[in-house]
Amino acid sequence: MFSKLFKATLITFCIFVFVFANALNAKEHPSLILTKEGVEKIRDNLGKVPLFDATVEKIKAEVDKEIALGIDTPIPKDFSGGYTHYRHKQNFVIAQQAGALYQILQDEKYAIYVRDMLLQYEAMYKDLPVHPQVRSYAPGKLFWQCLNDSNWLVFMSQAYDTIYDFLSSEEREKLENNLFRPFADYISLANPAFYNRIHNHSTWGNAAVGMIGLVMDDQALIQRALYGIQDDGLAVGGVDDDGGTIKSENQKRGFLANLEEPFSPDGYYTEGPYYQRYAMYPFLIFATAMQNKLPEYGVLQHKDNVLLKGIDALLNLTDADGDFFPLNDGQKGMSYFTPSLVTAVNIGYYYGNQNPELLSIAEKQNEVLLDQTGLAVAIGVQANMAEPYTKHSVNLSDGANGDEGGVAVLRSGQEDLTAVFKYAAQGLSHGHYDKLSFSLYRKGTEVLQDYGLVRFVNVGQKGGGNYLKENASWAKSTIAHNTLSQNQEMHFGGDYKTGSQHHSDLHFYADHDEKVQVASALETNAYPGTRMHRTIAFINANDFSEPFMLDIMKVSAKKAHDYDLPFYYFGQVIQTNFDYIKPSSLSPLGDKNGYQHLYLEATGKPSADTTQFSWLHEGKFYTLSTLTAPSDEILMTRIGANDPDFNLRSEPGVMLRRNNTQDTVFVTIVEPHGSYSPVTELSLNSNSAIKSLELLHDDKAYTAVRIEDVKGKTQLFVVSNLDAEKTREHTLTIGSKNYRWEGPYAYITAP
Amino acid sequence: MFSKLFKATLITFCIFVFVFANALNAKEHPSLILTKEGVEKIRDNLGKVPLFDATVEKIKAEVDKEIALGIDTPIPKDFSGGYTHYRHKQNFVIAQQAGALYQILQDEKYAIYVRDMLLQYEAMYKDLPVHPQVRSYAPGKLFWQCLNDSNWLVFMSQAYDTIYDFLSSEEREKLENNLFRPFADYISLANPAFYNRIHNHSTWGNAAVGMIGLVMDDQALIQRALYGIQDDGLAVGGVDDDGGTIKSENQKRGFLANLEEPFSPDGYYTEGPYYQRYAMYPFLIFATAMQNKLPEYGVLQHKDNVLLKGIDALLNLTDADGDFFPLNDGQKGMSYFTPSLVTAVNIGYYYGNQNPELLSIAEKQNEVLLDQTGLAVAIGVQANMAEPYTKHSVNLSDGANGDEGGVAVLRSGQEDLTAVFKYAAQGLSHGHYDKLSFSLYRKGTEVLQDYGLVRFVNVGQKGGGNYLKENASWAKSTIAHNTLSQNQEMHFGGDYKTGSQHHSDLHFYADHDEKVQVASALETNAYPGTRMHRTIAFINANDFSEPFMLDIMKVSAKKAHDYDLPFYYFGQVIQTNFDYIKPSSLSPLGDKNGYQHLYLEATGKPSADTTQFSWLHEGKFYTLSTLTAPSDEILMTRIGANDPDFNLRSEPGVMLRRNNTQDTVFVTIVEPHGSYSPVTELSLNSNSAIKSLELLHDDKAYTAVRIEDVKGKTQLFVVSNLDAEKTREHTLTIGSKNYRWEGPYAYITAP
Repeated sequence: MFSKLFKATLITFCIFVFVFANALNAKEHPSLILTKEGVEKIRDNLGKVPLFDATVEKIKAEVDKEIALGIDTPIPKDFSGGYTHYRHKQNFVIAQQAGALYQILQDEKYAIYVRDMLLQYEAMYKDLPVHPQVRSYAPGKLFWQCLNDSNWLVFMSQAYDTIYDFLSSEEREKLENNLFRPFADYISLANPAFYNRIHNHSTWGNAAVGMIGLVMDDQALIQRALYGIQDDGLAVGGVDDDGGTIKSENQKRGFLANLEEPFSPDGYYTEGPYYQRYAMYPFLIFATAMQNKLPEYGVLQHKDNVLLKGIDALLNLTDADGDFFPLNDGQKGMSYFTPSLVTAVNIGYYYGNQNPELLSIAEKQNEVLLDQTGLAVAIGVQANMAEPYTKHSVNLSDGANGDEGGVAVLRSGQEDLTAVFKYAAQGLSHGHYDKLSFSLYRKGTEVLQDYGLVRFVNVGQKGGGNYLKENASWAKSTIAHNTLSQNQEMHFGGDYKTGSQHHSDLHFYADHDEKVQVASALETNAYPGTRMHRTIAFINANDFSEPFMLDIMKVSAKKAHDYDLPFYYFGQVIQTNFDYIKPSSLSPLGDKNGYQHLYLEATGKPSADTTQFSWLHEGKFYTLSTLTAPSDEILMTRIGANDPDFNLRSEPGVMLRRNNTQDTVFVTIVEPHGSYSPVTELSLNSNSAIKSLELLHDDKAYTAVRIEDVKGKTQLFVVSNLDAEKTREHTLTIGSKNYRWEGPYAYITAP
Repeated sequence: MFSKLFKATLITFCIFVFVFANALNAKEHPSLILTKEGVEKIRDNLGKVPLFDATVEKIKAEVDKEIALGIDTPIPKDFSGGYTHYRHKQNFVIAQQAGALYQILQDEKYAIYVRDMLLQYEAMYKDLPVHPQVRSYAPGKLFWQCLNDSNWLVFMSQAYDTIYDFLSSEEREKLENNLFRPFADYISLANPAFYNRIHNHSTWGNAAVGMIGLVMDDQALIQRALYGIQDDGLAVGGVDDDGGTIKSENQKRGFLANLEEPFSPDGYYTEGPYYQRYAMYPFLIFATAMQNKLPEYGVLQHKDNVLLKGIDALLNLTDADGDFFPLNDGQKGMSYFTPSLVTAVNIGYYYGNQNPELLSIAEKQNEVLLDQTGLAVAIGVQANMAEPYTKHSVNLSDGANGDEGGVAVLRSGQEDLTAVFKYAAQGLSHGHYDKLSFSLYRKGTEVLQDYGLVRFVNVGQKGGGNYLKENASWAKSTIAHNTLSQNQEMHFGGDYKTGSQHHSDLHFYADHDEKVQVASALETNAYPGTRMHRTIAFINANDFSEPFMLDIMKVSAKKAHDYDLPFYYFGQVIQTNFDYIKPSSLSPLGDKNGYQHLYLEATGKPSADTTQFSWLHEGKFYTLSTLTAPSDEILMTRIGANDPDFNLRSEPGVMLRRNNTQDTVFVTIVEPHGSYSPVTELSLNSNSAIKSLELLHDDKAYTAVRIEDVKGKTQLFVVSNLDAEKTREHTLTIGSKNYRWEGPYAYITAP
């Protein structure tokens, strides 16, 4: 038996030889994604590599079913969610797969299917008007927006490449002149507002034009893909359907610009993981096609391999079930099981450094690409090379240069507790007004949620599957997030342009100590005149059965304001240490800025300095302990007011309200504990281990929190508010005690 | 290799020989549950039967951990959910297991542990006063209610039996005189109101007294167990904490009476599956002990093997995940993974007819009893004898003689769709006022729910883990169920005594045709002067992708009333074909009878004869189509009003309101269709296949409903309202057409 290391080296070497050998045959077909050599290797291995064979079988079954149904290219009519939308989408997916099957199985029926479908499109496209549903800033022809037309071309380019040699030159000419070139021109030259942006829309558009350009060996299209339309005639300004900027001052354009700007050097994509997952496909597929056909451009390696880094960043932005954190506009439930992540994992493995941890994701996906990358992954899996993809804490910068804030993900244990702390930039048009917000997970379960978006993607009955108006009025609002609202206003007044000029800043990030992990960040622009400094720490204390989260939000303001700090939990209220009153009728908490969507379910007053609120969710108890002043209020809320079409989810929150206050510190512990099973009916460890919190010290330089547990043991956590140098020595006297430590925070047991 | 049949026969024969051989040695120990021969056989097989060995390992680990912690028998103080409650409960569980381990592993440390624990109890019990938390109608000593004390004795009797021979006669005398006999007397003679009822409480009490009687060979206790206290001095009347009757006119008493009365001949237990699961343990364990020690009484075979039938009935009252339907007071999530169902499955297999389908449940439970029954199951599993436990439609009668209504469970496919139709008797003190209600499941997912109980069992923070006041004000109420409310009143005026005098009646049940399955039942007493006739049919129509449920509720009243028919769904509203208005504030729908707990979220008016309401839940679309008159209202509701302690779950409902009407028919179709995945973002078949419903005919004798689908095809369903004879020939003329059929219903396609 070969050793694992030897096998890995061998695979790496073979791939290396393969990648370079391939680049020599740029004009043969297929050569875009699937290559001639790739096909040969695949055919040599057919029936020998279980994961690959299973994928072939699965896709063959799907494609055969579609072939049996017959080709349908209906006259475009519907929004997403409707039949014509679904059918054209299904067509390009199936055509791409059928093309791959033709190459792999060498059964002409697949080539005939693709050819006939393309010819039907050719016949229709010539005279096709703009899509009748004119709601987009850039309507497509097959679909209601150019974006979906671009999806079509990205996939159909691959299909065309695989059957290129099967077609007669007359057929090719017909398709290229009447379908592909006009199609590429329509989504680019005819729609510069769509094509020339820095936006995932343009990435799809650029990739589409570039892919078909590569297949047709059309240099003009390739250049247009890489560098955009040189003179687009667009004025600076203008917004799309979601309020996103179309053209800003000195805006770059084209695929490479789209690769440079939204990706940080760490591979974080400024729109957030939901859109990164979506954009990843055109990014990777066109970069791979360029690698295969024009490697000298170095597109796949551009910006210090940022695309390959992006794959890792994206996988790190998932919970234990593989679901992406729904930062900004993100539909919950989207996960690394989506086809674009199969693409990402396969390409990342093959063109990256054959990280064996990627193989374990591929095992879970239980599917590979039908090309040489998928074969390599399947061979790696078969060779038992897979190692668990272990997610650690990670800090990802935002901004093209990595200097526009970021996202910190703290993880404890095997994702037993995960906090996602967002101190990023606005995130383009899909950004939310949620500076310094966080969400909390236990394995794959949301504990304190980020609401995500208000949209039922592709569910036609819900506004054509598009963004619903509550996305702007609720989901983007500040109060919809686990962060501070001031005077019931949104960060940046909810103004996109202002928000886009600013970002939060990292104070420090420290994950070297499994016992205490800390992320600390500042926001000074969201509310002019108010400085917010939030520090989130995971503390794995000796006397606690499980780690807890400490959250310190220090507010320094030029004048007094009203503050609200909400926490959106799930489950059933179990206990509070304060009294509350439930009104007989539920009314909205406010009339704008998201408050209009919250019902006020109860109002409480603290009965102690440490206010506690416990709940039960999916068999786990949680307690939120927070430092309160006697004049504070605790509001219990529920989402769903002023929601005429039932677009919102009815979910609860608990909010700390502190009115008419200038400088203040919010100190909160969120603590998972114990368990409940409806089968054993055992309620274990159902009480909080926290007895009290105390703000032992707070000034410009230091904030110190003392935590006493129910056994009477104490812990002290100190954060240095001004100086975040790793090696700085600090001394602080509190009462009669002197504390001395190095670095931006101190954690002291039995202080 | 032996054939499966041969193996099954061999196993059956061995068990047969074994059961009878065992009965000859009634006075040796252990002989109660674990027998001497059983121990020998187990020891012969140790290390050879994986499932049994795994259980031994698992339980050994648990017991060893407890032994390491040391014995603690604290002075009783807490309610359920508190420490002393938990500790004493844990003690009896562990002692019973330690006793079994002593026999199986013959390691004296287990016997010493049990002995020392029992002696500590002996030392404490002598002078122990009644439990300080006096809230029960029958307070215990170790626990706040005699019920839990009885649990203790049922388990400790087994522990005692296993170490009987290990103890000196002095130790035995001490334990019997100072602990066991006084303990048995306290829960029986000192608490006849607890002991002499027809109720699961008394079953536990009877079994406890009987078990210890058998170990001590005390005939007086055994007789007291079987036949109750002859002269209990109790007056007729009196109620327990839950409002349940303590003594009724001519009430029988004792274990056998408790076996006769609440069980129907089909094995349905009138309180419902949640309590049947609870009562099953003492029923089976004492019946097994009697079988082992005094088989001549035939307790296990009593009432035509009703206990063994009860096991099958109970397993049939679960959804596809094994969760019990929460009929009456039932805590959701309780399932056949609970230890008492391991007992039931093991005993049912061993003492029943070795049904190989039970083995597949045992495989899922992944645990067996540490006795000869568990060994037999584990051997069966090892021999690959297990066959899938396939649940079919089933109709279970209620009432001691099977003539007090019942519960019909309609199932389609592999539990793809399951309707639980309740036309039963009141169900003793845990019964709900929900005549002719139903709930609907898709596999293990609730589609239209039965709310269950309002209680957080053993969660001390929630009212000591006991029933909460919203259990009576909401959970038991009529409007909390998917059935008809008249004039916003509860069935029987919510009066337990009245409700207990009546039951619904089966009209007919037919499950012979997988295409059309029907259950039809009548209720004439819930609202005096009003006759409700509900027919629930599963129709597997040719042109539909999935089966749907047709629900016909025919109401015949002596005068006009206001009717409400609610459906409690889960998930997100997707579409309605009617307009509705959402008020700016949410107010309760009423002020009593459960209505005070419903917020009115929206009010709609029908815009067509067929009103449609669609929702999305866990990736599946559902549409409710219902026949409406222009004056009907559609109310959208949410549970949670007037709930000062957040004891209720915030969950939605949609309600059809038809005011000031005398005779009427409610016709509704509930139709699962299509799917939605947040990963593929594909919305498939998201629209209802129903175009319209029509009440084509309705009179005293026949009700006929015409269903037209979106393709224009029609179906006709006719129910015979008066004559339910299977072989009766019917003719009916509707318009110009004559229909002729045999039996109580007709299903005609393309009528």
